[in-house]
Amino acid sequence: MTESTDQATAPSARTTVKRGANRAVYAGEEVKAILDAGTIAHVGVNTPDGPIVLPMAYGRDDDTIFVHGSVANAMLRAGRSVEVCITVTIVDGLVVARTPFHNSMNYRSVVIRGEATAVEPERMLETLKIINDHVVPTWDLARAPSELDVKQTLVLELPLAEASAKVRGEGAIDEDIDMDGPHWAGVVPLTSTWGTPITNEDLRSEIPVPEVLTAMAGTDANPGKAYG
Amino acid sequence: MTESTDQATAPSARTTVKRGANRAVYAGEEVKAILDAGTIAHVGVNTPDGPIVLPMAYGRDDDTIFVHGSVANAMLRAGRSVEVCITVTIVDGLVVARTPFHNSMNYRSVVIRGEATAVEPERMLETLKIINDHVVPTWDLARAPSELDVKQTLVLELPLAEASAKVRGEGAIDEDIDMDGPHWAGVVPLTSTWGTPITNEDLRSEIPVPEVLTAMAGTDANPGKAYG
Repeated sequence: MTESTDQATAPSARTTVKRGANRAVYAGEEVKAILDAGTIAHVGVNTPDGPIVLPMAYGRDDDTIFVHGSVANAMLRAGRSVEVCITVTIVDGLVVARTPFHNSMNYRSVVIRGEATAVEPERMLETLKIINDHVVPTWDLARAPSELDVKQTLVLELPLAEASAKVRGEGAIDEDIDMDGPHWAGVVPLTSTWGTPITNEDLRSEIPVPEVLTAMAGTDANPGKAYG
Repeated sequence: MTESTDQATAPSARTTVKRGANRAVYAGEEVKAILDAGTIAHVGVNTPDGPIVLPMAYGRDDDTIFVHGSVANAMLRAGRSVEVCITVTIVDGLVVARTPFHNSMNYRSVVIRGEATAVEPERMLETLKIINDHVVPTWDLARAPSELDVKQTLVLELPLAEASAKVRGEGAIDEDIDMDGPHWAGVVPLTSTWGTPITNEDLRSEIPVPEVLTAMAGTDANPGKAYG
């Protein structure tokens, strides 16, 4: 592992997973794999009106996560940096135990805390491409953004230094007293799948669907689940 | 509409959707439909160490959302109530525009802010059942929780009074200058589907999979998407 990966292996005290610590995974490679497999992030900041959590597109490059959204503007009202928590969760299945107290979900999640900063204007294009291409690389297929487009945009970056991953990927775990009982136990898997691209009604008729998008149809949007 | 629904129709000033206000929907029925279709919530609170956002199971009853999780304990450390933001997001597709500046996602999301309080012990069983049965009603199929199980549990409740919904469900929206260009535009739909139940390896062999779970196989986990 590289040194930068090791940073993600040794999170700060506040990032330590306190509950269900047996499911905690701090290895940097696991954090990165989950971030790469996820679709959206939920970004939390505190405001004078209390906490707010908003869904945002994101991308990862090496040991940094980038989030994008007009809302980032509001988050930065107070300055050039903001304390955030960026959480990415993939739900992989419903765990049905012999008693509802042990019902659970199989999931992969990453929680990243720290001080997010605004990406400098000269790196804006590069980081927008990283976010755009996180789910599927379409940046180079389209018309490049204008200078004005880029000026209207804000990207926040946050190092993965205080990241922790948590994974549950197994069957139901019940108590000894229930093992001979009449109740079923198991997992109902959940899978997110890309569908067949739907061409815009206003598209010129001779333009074909890009191959990279037709190739997505039927594929798992969050590959790498541990069970099911 | 009932009066309680109207509460969700008239959110507070801080819940007003500021960006993309054209996509904002405040109708209480829309909020409830999205909450009912969602799978997990992302719950944000502020802490002395900054904001934290964690995924949690949830359920809805009338105009109240309930979240459950051992982590709720930590959130309530300071007292019997806590300022939270509960966000539920369903991603319905990837919007690919003629220029990446107009790329987006189709989604349904609800943001609820307010003061969450701990459910009183005498209502604990009832609210745990609501959360358990949110995705699929399995509570009555299983062994009822013991008093000890319930004592170890904490449920937070939050009224939908300050809830807002936001929905995007349409094709790409591009600029006039790009309409005659060579670039494709459209949507790649995303669908989460329940799979065939996987029986626990340690289950007594004569116990069948409950019908309610076999019936889920192949169904949309987040029904009601607006497009695709």
